[in-house]
Amino acid sequence: MTGSNLQELKNYAKELLPSAIDTLKEYLRFPTISAQGTAIPETVQYVEKMISEAGGHSTVLDDLGGNPVVYGFFAAGPKGDSSKTLLFYNHYDVQPPEPLDEWNSEPFNPSVIDGKLFARGVADNKGDLVARLTAINVLKQAEGGLPCNIKFLIEGEEEIGSPNLAPYLKKYKELFQADACIWEFGGKDEEERISMVAGIKGMAYLELTCVGADIDMHSSVGAYVDNAAWRLVQALATMKNQDNEILVEGFYDGIQEPKESEKQAVKALPFSEEAVSRIYGLKRPLITAARGSDPRDAMVFEPTMTICGLVSGYTGPGAKTVLPKSASAKVDCRLVPGQDPDHILESVKKHLKKHGFDDIEVSMVNGQKAYRSDYNHPFVAHVMQTARDVYEKEGILAPNSAGTGPMYDFGEQLELPIVSTGVGWVESKAHAPNESIRLQDFEQGIVHMAYMLSGFPAALKSAEEETNAI
Amino acid sequence: MTGSNLQELKNYAKELLPSAIDTLKEYLRFPTISAQGTAIPETVQYVEKMISEAGGHSTVLDDLGGNPVVYGFFAAGPKGDSSKTLLFYNHYDVQPPEPLDEWNSEPFNPSVIDGKLFARGVADNKGDLVARLTAINVLKQAEGGLPCNIKFLIEGEEEIGSPNLAPYLKKYKELFQADACIWEFGGKDEEERISMVAGIKGMAYLELTCVGADIDMHSSVGAYVDNAAWRLVQALATMKNQDNEILVEGFYDGIQEPKESEKQAVKALPFSEEAVSRIYGLKRPLITAARGSDPRDAMVFEPTMTICGLVSGYTGPGAKTVLPKSASAKVDCRLVPGQDPDHILESVKKHLKKHGFDDIEVSMVNGQKAYRSDYNHPFVAHVMQTARDVYEKEGILAPNSAGTGPMYDFGEQLELPIVSTGVGWVESKAHAPNESIRLQDFEQGIVHMAYMLSGFPAALKSAEEETNAI
Repeated sequence: MTGSNLQELKNYAKELLPSAIDTLKEYLRFPTISAQGTAIPETVQYVEKMISEAGGHSTVLDDLGGNPVVYGFFAAGPKGDSSKTLLFYNHYDVQPPEPLDEWNSEPFNPSVIDGKLFARGVADNKGDLVARLTAINVLKQAEGGLPCNIKFLIEGEEEIGSPNLAPYLKKYKELFQADACIWEFGGKDEEERISMVAGIKGMAYLELTCVGADIDMHSSVGAYVDNAAWRLVQALATMKNQDNEILVEGFYDGIQEPKESEKQAVKALPFSEEAVSRIYGLKRPLITAARGSDPRDAMVFEPTMTICGLVSGYTGPGAKTVLPKSASAKVDCRLVPGQDPDHILESVKKHLKKHGFDDIEVSMVNGQKAYRSDYNHPFVAHVMQTARDVYEKEGILAPNSAGTGPMYDFGEQLELPIVSTGVGWVESKAHAPNESIRLQDFEQGIVHMAYMLSGFPAALKSAEEETNAI
Repeated sequence: MTGSNLQELKNYAKELLPSAIDTLKEYLRFPTISAQGTAIPETVQYVEKMISEAGGHSTVLDDLGGNPVVYGFFAAGPKGDSSKTLLFYNHYDVQPPEPLDEWNSEPFNPSVIDGKLFARGVADNKGDLVARLTAINVLKQAEGGLPCNIKFLIEGEEEIGSPNLAPYLKKYKELFQADACIWEFGGKDEEERISMVAGIKGMAYLELTCVGADIDMHSSVGAYVDNAAWRLVQALATMKNQDNEILVEGFYDGIQEPKESEKQAVKALPFSEEAVSRIYGLKRPLITAARGSDPRDAMVFEPTMTICGLVSGYTGPGAKTVLPKSASAKVDCRLVPGQDPDHILESVKKHLKKHGFDDIEVSMVNGQKAYRSDYNHPFVAHVMQTARDVYEKEGILAPNSAGTGPMYDFGEQLELPIVSTGVGWVESKAHAPNESIRLQDFEQGIVHMAYMLSGFPAALKSAEEETNAI
């Protein structure tokens, strides 16, 4: 492996850290909530400004609808290899900050407390973008230019399921072409190991709605008027039983049996029930999905069906005696390779009809297929190797994450290996109140990306040579 | 029957109507939401002002906690019978106005549209109090004084289940002593018949809460973390089946078999499925409770179990991929004579434990027993008879209403017959958006109360004489 001296990169990263934190804080002040469509244009403008300040060129793509996709390009330096390109995938949108009263600080007023930076979106995913742009600055200082071309795809609808990304990837396939991709997220696990993934689960995020009447009614009519809330509850109860078995016929259709190497990788994943319970304050023991007996297997290989939200009638303090006109549930199904979100939607519709609930409307808020990269690609080994050097500890690489993203579209259009790593930590609380990153992880993440980029062309070349030699 | 000439009472009511409407509008401007504790002192002050302006004396009772109970007293006139007393029961609190976006007018800015007065609380129960006070004014003008003593008990916690009323009734039993009671509500049915009741259902309003963790989590952990929303859904589904049978063991314990006269009265009640469906915009046919086959029977004789509210996780627009830390449901059980709210609470707790849901907390927001008056008391006949004269149409009298109130405490402490009648109509939408009364019903209600009071002493006396003669 060629490239910079690691210590030198570390020194530059330390030097650039304060201004990187300032840049990140400013970025975090935008309440870029895609679910609610807030602060999109100003955030896009700020992303372009950050790219420009790091010496790159940006293009805003918005001709295919949805929130704009920002394309960023940084050319290889005079000493770099312009035949090699690395693509970073990030998103500038964040989850809604609710419930607000559980934040110890303002979600859009970034606060540093005990070496941690708290704000909505700091871990998912604004911190990673700033770390990557800072790595570019580090490389320029250390090497006088970039070791390869670097591209960014920064979208604004990841948190609502990237509903418009696929057409952009298809149309701008040439623009985004690269040799490998670093995905948006990652971080330290409970034993301080960097935890990465080479794939991702898919999703069918469904909304179930039962409308029983035009208006809310006095609850005394419950003697003879059917109740939308009861119907929704009864319908949901037919979809998953108390043992957490998903009962929707067709739900498990098409699931690809994991490869032996993937199974072995999963067996090696660390997992501490004690740590998980402590971090979330769990009141009950862990469950395991119907087909898996180990949480590791469930995390990687098993689909889920999770109620993310329920609402009907009066939800304020005290008693309101109302028979609600409607009830709805948000149900998030995480899918594994081989499952098709459209088939899940159809299966749920058929299931409800079969059980007498054809008055319950089902719509898909977003659907994405799962993806797993080729686990044996040299890029995967290169990311692992550089992580070990930087973090001075063996990292973890799962065949796919328990989370979701539009990786399937990248894989299909760009045909490249993808590894996801980032600056989070085990208590980052993505999607929850008090989201945070630790500044030391942020600094190490900058170094890792700089070091990985520094050796990137050589790693690919040596792999090519090996392949040619065979 | 003695008392005023009916036409004369009608003339005075018409004359006093405009100022009565003004008084009512001012009363309706107070957002007296007991569930949220708003506007209590100013409403109490206004109630005292109304009593005083009608020539009565008021006393505010607040020594036993809760929102104050207003006692009002009007002495019989020189030509009246001071040995006879009628008690009116009313409440000055109202339901929360939500959902606000479904109101066509401001809920606390009373609006007259097409002869209807729209505001939160106008039908339940502020309109009735003003009608009764106006009836007193009508009688004073027509007869130069009142035909009997008149008392008022006006409480401020009916909409949250009158949790503090029983101790006041017990302590101030002598103060409220009367020969008969007119209860708070009533109105015209879909065929323009005045609809009254001589009893009331009870209530056990329960709150079920499941807490799964200290914080909301990213929904990807659904592979191994148990979900409070799923647990609540599964638990509720064990309590009532798809055929609306309540499955909680002990729920039906102690129910008194209705008397034959009550059964006959219920058979005679009017009921139009078409009208009910049209008024509420129902999407499905009516249901009937497990043990009843006719909506009339269900309405009067069958207990209910209604989900009034459900909430968990993210309920905003779009998708938030969260695994909720908790979930809760508000469940309103309407009870019939013989059922005990405390026993219902215990039965639900036992049921949940038996089905493996001992992590679900159950609390009772309010509990009240059902009550039925003696259907054969002469006061009941007098109210029916005067209604027939005033409304020029046969009225309806059910043994008890489908709704609830603290009637059991009145019956137990004061031992008197109780009939409920009022100025509502079939589309009053109590507890729902666009609550209204029709001004013509308000006027007729004033006349009915004046005419009923006018003949009240004679009706009781003739009954006493009949009893003595036997």
